[in-house]
Amino acid sequence: MAERPKLVLAMRPDILDLVLPAPLRARLDALADVHPAPVTDWDDAGAALAAADVLFTGWGSPVLDTAALERAPRLAAVIHAAGSVKGHVRPEVWQRGVAVSSAADANAAPVIEFTLATVWLAARRTLGAAAGYTGGQLPGHQERTGADGATVGVIGASRIGRGVIARLTASPAGFRVLLADPYVPAAEADRLGVELVGPDELFRRSDVVTVHAPDLPETHHLVDARRLALLRDGAAVVNTARGRLVDTEALTRECAAGRLDAYLDVTEPEPLPAGHPLHLLPNVLLTPHIAGCQGTEVRRLGAYAVDEVERWVRGEPLLGAVLADDLARIA
Amino acid sequence: MAERPKLVLAMRPDILDLVLPAPLRARLDALADVHPAPVTDWDDAGAALAAADVLFTGWGSPVLDTAALERAPRLAAVIHAAGSVKGHVRPEVWQRGVAVSSAADANAAPVIEFTLATVWLAARRTLGAAAGYTGGQLPGHQERTGADGATVGVIGASRIGRGVIARLTASPAGFRVLLADPYVPAAEADRLGVELVGPDELFRRSDVVTVHAPDLPETHHLVDARRLALLRDGAAVVNTARGRLVDTEALTRECAAGRLDAYLDVTEPEPLPAGHPLHLLPNVLLTPHIAGCQGTEVRRLGAYAVDEVERWVRGEPLLGAVLADDLARIA
Repeated sequence: MAERPKLVLAMRPDILDLVLPAPLRARLDALADVHPAPVTDWDDAGAALAAADVLFTGWGSPVLDTAALERAPRLAAVIHAAGSVKGHVRPEVWQRGVAVSSAADANAAPVIEFTLATVWLAARRTLGAAAGYTGGQLPGHQERTGADGATVGVIGASRIGRGVIARLTASPAGFRVLLADPYVPAAEADRLGVELVGPDELFRRSDVVTVHAPDLPETHHLVDARRLALLRDGAAVVNTARGRLVDTEALTRECAAGRLDAYLDVTEPEPLPAGHPLHLLPNVLLTPHIAGCQGTEVRRLGAYAVDEVERWVRGEPLLGAVLADDLARIA
Repeated sequence: MAERPKLVLAMRPDILDLVLPAPLRARLDALADVHPAPVTDWDDAGAALAAADVLFTGWGSPVLDTAALERAPRLAAVIHAAGSVKGHVRPEVWQRGVAVSSAADANAAPVIEFTLATVWLAARRTLGAAAGYTGGQLPGHQERTGADGATVGVIGASRIGRGVIARLTASPAGFRVLLADPYVPAAEADRLGVELVGPDELFRRSDVVTVHAPDLPETHHLVDARRLALLRDGAAVVNTARGRLVDTEALTRECAAGRLDAYLDVTEPEPLPAGHPLHLLPNVLLTPHIAGCQGTEVRRLGAYAVDEVERWVRGEPLLGAVLADDLARIA
């Protein structure tokens, strides 16, 4: 029988119990020899790193760069119990042949749910109605907007974008879904049930735009003042992806003018400083980057990652495998 | 072949095109002789009322009391293209043997969707997080709440309450659902997948309470200061039913203190006057009674009611039949 793999936990200690509540920790302990303390600085765990076969990473993991890899000669897999590996996995990890897995699939579910809740509210102009109600008058029927038949523009057929699309196209509200994504061919758009359009057309035709593109140099301010101006009066912008995709100040001006509503879980900068007008506009729901797994949901990330460790131990393919080439196009 | 029934539309003219867009109006015209103008005052349509077999009612319908019924000797059915018939149908309508139908089933769908969106956001403390973010700091992991495993207390297994329960119990979030309803037997609670509890226990144990009881003398201020005090810190109240069920001032005090969040589509009084603190509290989403069908969704009510007219013409049972006895226990 093969030797049990040696595993090091690399994440902030305060999240360890959320990621690995007792039943999950017991499963992990049964699969590997787990170094007792979670690590946030490789210097604190030199011997453990030198012996490690697997790194089980999470929020607050130290960066895996060349220096760290040279201290981890046995390392064969990095299993990340969170979404993006961009923060701590450098290209040299793949160059050394180390397998990388992320729990982005597990993190996506709450983000999709959060996005759908806000898109549906946005399609009915909920925040606009709330803002308009401060005068103490109920709106007349002509001032009310239903979700039925609303046009929702999805930017980016990412994992989360696709999850949102699947739920929107299945809704009895009969949403028309537009997709802007330069990497999706027409046949795939047909399969997804969306109409493939360019970004400008998407802004001209949508009642609600929801952003699910990766954060890359070429997507910086994809949602800028010019495109926001293409949106019809009363439209809404939803961003549960990354703040840099949207020109925060341009969107703030449109919302302050009452022309657009916004549901923003991320902004640029983040955190958004106290006193920024977005904190106080009645037609904006601004939340502090909470759409992903949090609290009791964090165990979903741990459960996914423990499953990955089990697959790795058994020599099975990793379901959450991240390849070096993915880095250029993922969130 | 029987004579075509004579039908009078009784609703505000400004909603007629929302309720009966052209294809639905054409179906109705094929089923009955429709009096050309919608009526909001019986005095304006004496001859039409005298000849009417069916009243097709909607928002703004005049009241059907004894005086009106005496002017409508042929009336056999009131088909309501909206939710509650309480506003315009008096007990003497049933006493005369007139069939009554409501489109409450069709109106329920957006209310259920609105309630679920807000319950899910409430289970994650979304408004509390938004309110806490005004200081410009992202919350730490210990301050974050996930929806997974949250306890949701449902008050009232009404049509909408049952719709909400069905969706909550089917959710992958693994909600624990408590139900307080004096008319639901234990075996039915088991079938619904809920734990039947008294209202006080429901408040003591719930993370989110959502109200779906009918508006009756005995449900007035069912959610009062004493029960709100039973809720744990950080819990939330959702009300998409009727404002009178909740002591608005008691809830306002709890929200102003930051102890509870609230998602309120209805209040007492309604509309809530300008300057009321609920309009401005950052941990309250106050909307102007918009959860039911509105805008493009209103055609669902018309479609349901036209289907009912068709069933009535064919002598089939009405799916939305409202009985005299229902008045005492429905919304």
